[in-house]
Amino acid sequence: MRIAGVMTGTSFDAIDVALCDIEQKGGRDAVSLFAFTSVPFSEQTQDLLAQSQQANASLEELSDLAFALAREYADAITAVERQHNVHADAIAIHGQTIWHHPPLSTWQIGNGSALSAMLGRTVISDFRSADVALGGQGAPLVPIFDHATICDNRLHRIALNIGGMANVTIMPPSCSLDSLIAFDTGPGNVWIDAGARLTFGKKFDNNGSIAQAGRVITPMLAEMKTLPYFAAEPPKSTGRELFTLKEAQRLITKYSHPSSPLEDVVTTMTELSAWSIADHVMRYAPATQEIIVSGGGSQNSFLMERIALLLEENHSPAQLVVHQHWQEKEAMAFAYLGYLTLMGRPGNVPYVTGASRMAILGSVSRSVVL
Amino acid sequence: MRIAGVMTGTSFDAIDVALCDIEQKGGRDAVSLFAFTSVPFSEQTQDLLAQSQQANASLEELSDLAFALAREYADAITAVERQHNVHADAIAIHGQTIWHHPPLSTWQIGNGSALSAMLGRTVISDFRSADVALGGQGAPLVPIFDHATICDNRLHRIALNIGGMANVTIMPPSCSLDSLIAFDTGPGNVWIDAGARLTFGKKFDNNGSIAQAGRVITPMLAEMKTLPYFAAEPPKSTGRELFTLKEAQRLITKYSHPSSPLEDVVTTMTELSAWSIADHVMRYAPATQEIIVSGGGSQNSFLMERIALLLEENHSPAQLVVHQHWQEKEAMAFAYLGYLTLMGRPGNVPYVTGASRMAILGSVSRSVVL
Repeated sequence: MRIAGVMTGTSFDAIDVALCDIEQKGGRDAVSLFAFTSVPFSEQTQDLLAQSQQANASLEELSDLAFALAREYADAITAVERQHNVHADAIAIHGQTIWHHPPLSTWQIGNGSALSAMLGRTVISDFRSADVALGGQGAPLVPIFDHATICDNRLHRIALNIGGMANVTIMPPSCSLDSLIAFDTGPGNVWIDAGARLTFGKKFDNNGSIAQAGRVITPMLAEMKTLPYFAAEPPKSTGRELFTLKEAQRLITKYSHPSSPLEDVVTTMTELSAWSIADHVMRYAPATQEIIVSGGGSQNSFLMERIALLLEENHSPAQLVVHQHWQEKEAMAFAYLGYLTLMGRPGNVPYVTGASRMAILGSVSRSVVL
Repeated sequence: MRIAGVMTGTSFDAIDVALCDIEQKGGRDAVSLFAFTSVPFSEQTQDLLAQSQQANASLEELSDLAFALAREYADAITAVERQHNVHADAIAIHGQTIWHHPPLSTWQIGNGSALSAMLGRTVISDFRSADVALGGQGAPLVPIFDHATICDNRLHRIALNIGGMANVTIMPPSCSLDSLIAFDTGPGNVWIDAGARLTFGKKFDNNGSIAQAGRVITPMLAEMKTLPYFAAEPPKSTGRELFTLKEAQRLITKYSHPSSPLEDVVTTMTELSAWSIADHVMRYAPATQEIIVSGGGSQNSFLMERIALLLEENHSPAQLVVHQHWQEKEAMAFAYLGYLTLMGRPGNVPYVTGASRMAILGSVSRSVVL
C-alpha cells in the first residue's frame, strides 16, 4: 500500500510529506520511503496558525484554519506526487496540534473529510484522540513504528528522536510491543535554540558551532539537573509548557556574567540535553548497543559527540548512528500509523501512552470520486 | 444494520438518539425506527456550548467541548440502549454546528474518534465538510433520506420540516435523486417563537393557541413578504442570520399598537410562515398531493390549519399529513447518512447542495475493542 504521511511540527513552518510503500514481509511490516518533500506553509496559513495560538482565536478563524490546512496539505501532496510522478493510495495526516491536555482533550486541527473530498482520496486523520479518550497521553505514537522498523533480532537498540524535546524508544532484541519502553528524556533542541536566540539572535545553533566554542557553566547545569522531571520514573512526557522560553531566560540572566563568553550559555544548554539523554539511557537501557538518532538534533555534531562521550565515560557499549531518514522519520511514522488504521490494527501502545487498552486510531474519510 | 443516529439542534437543549434498523428491500433502502430518546444536555455542557458561541471561546474550552460532547453522546446512547435492551452496530453523529459559512468552512464539533474509543463502537461523524469542500452548502443533507423513505410511486409528495427554519423536499412520483428539489422556504418557528417570547415571555406558542386568538396585522405581513429571500429562486438556504431576533423585535415595535391585542403579533408571524410555505409549494410543486410534515411546527395545529387553508384557497390538491416520526426524523436521517457512508455510498445531492460532485460523507472511526 502506498501511503503519504503528512506531518507538521510545533514550529508551524513547513509541511513534511513522506510517500511510503508499506507491505508485510515475512510476518513483519516493511516501510520504505520513495519520495519526500518539505513544503513551507503559505504566509496566510502561518498567520492563521499563529493567531490560533492566541487565547482569543474566533470560531471563524479556527473553522477556516481547519479547511485552509486541508488545502495546504492537498497542494503539498499534489506537488510531491507530480514531482515524482507517483500517486498515493491514501493519506495520513497528523494535523496541527493546537491543544494537548490529556486526560481532558487533545486537538489536532486540519479537516480530514475536506482533504479527502478535495483530493478524491482516502484520508486518515486525528490519531491522538482515541488514546486520550482511553485515559492515555495520546503520545508518543511513534514507538510502534520504531518497533516495526528499528527493533533488531540480536542488537539492543534505542530509537532516539531529538526535536524540540528528546524521546527514546527502548528495544531489547526481538522485543514484543508490550515490553517497549518509550518516554521523553527532557529537552532536545528547545533550550539550545532558546540560548542561541537570546544570546546571538540566531534561530538555532547550526551544527553546534556556538556550543563547541564555549564552556559549561557548572552551577547553571547543576541547577537545571535538579528539575524533578529528570528524576521521575517513566512513563513520562513533557513539552514546552515545562521547558519554557521564560525559564530559559531566567536561568541565562542568573548565570551568565558580563565577563564570560556568551557561547557558554549555549554550551551549557547543549550539555543539559546530552546529559539527560545519556543519563536516561544508562538508567533504563544500560545494555544498549545502538542508538539510532533522528530529528534536527541528529545534525548537531557537537551534541552528538557529547552524548557519545558521556555514554563512553559511563562504560556504555552504545554507538550513535544517524537514522537514514533522520528528517523524514516522523512523517513516515504517520504513514505507517495510517496503514495500521486501514488494516484494522491498533496504533497505540498502552504501556507507553497509559491508555486503558489498544485502539484503532484516527478517523477515515473516503470521499473518493465515484 | 442497526445504527444510532444522534442529532442535536441549534437550541443546545437536548441530544436526540434514534436507533434504526436499515436494510435493503427490493432495491430500496428501508429505515425503521425501533427506539428513540431525547436526553437533555448536562448544564455543564450547555454552559460550554453557550460559551463556544461567544466570539472569544478559548482553545481549551473548544477542545474540551469536543470531548465533553463525545461523553454526553456516549451516555445518551448507553441510556437508550439499556432502556430498550438493544445494541447499535454503529453510531452516526451530526455534532453541534458552531460555525457554518460555506464555501469557506463548516464546523460540527464533537469528537468522533473519542466517542468511538469510549464506546468501542464504529462512529461516523462530520457529515457536512466534504460537501462544503466541494463547493456545496453542506446542506440540506436530509433530502436523500426523504427520497428513500417518503418518495412514492404514484403520489406527488413533499417532505416539509418545520423547525427554526422550514424546508421542503419536492418529490414527483418515482423521482430520481438528480431530479429532487429541496430548499428552505424561510422561517418556520423562529419568528413565531420570537413573537411569543417578546410579547408573552413564553418559549413558544404551544399548539398555536396564542396565534389562534389574534388577527393578522396586514401592513406588518406585507412588509415581511417583501423580504428578497422569498422571491429568490432555489437552490437557496437561510438561517437565523437572516431571520434574527433583532429584526423580529424591530417589526414588532414598528407595527404593534398599544391598543391592539398582543396576540396579533404572534398571529402575523404564524401567517408569514404559513404563507411562505404554501406560496413555495404553489410555485414549485403545484401538483403536490401529500405534504408529510415533521419538526416542532407539525405540532402547531393553528399553523398547520393556516397552511392547509392557504393551499385550498389556491386550488391545491395537497393534503397535510403529520409524519409518523415527526420528532425523530432528523436523527433517523443521520442514522441513514451513516449507513450510506459505511456502505461506500454518497450522501449529498449535488443539485440540492451545489457541490461539484457526489461524495461519501463524513469520517469513520473504528476504535473497537480488539
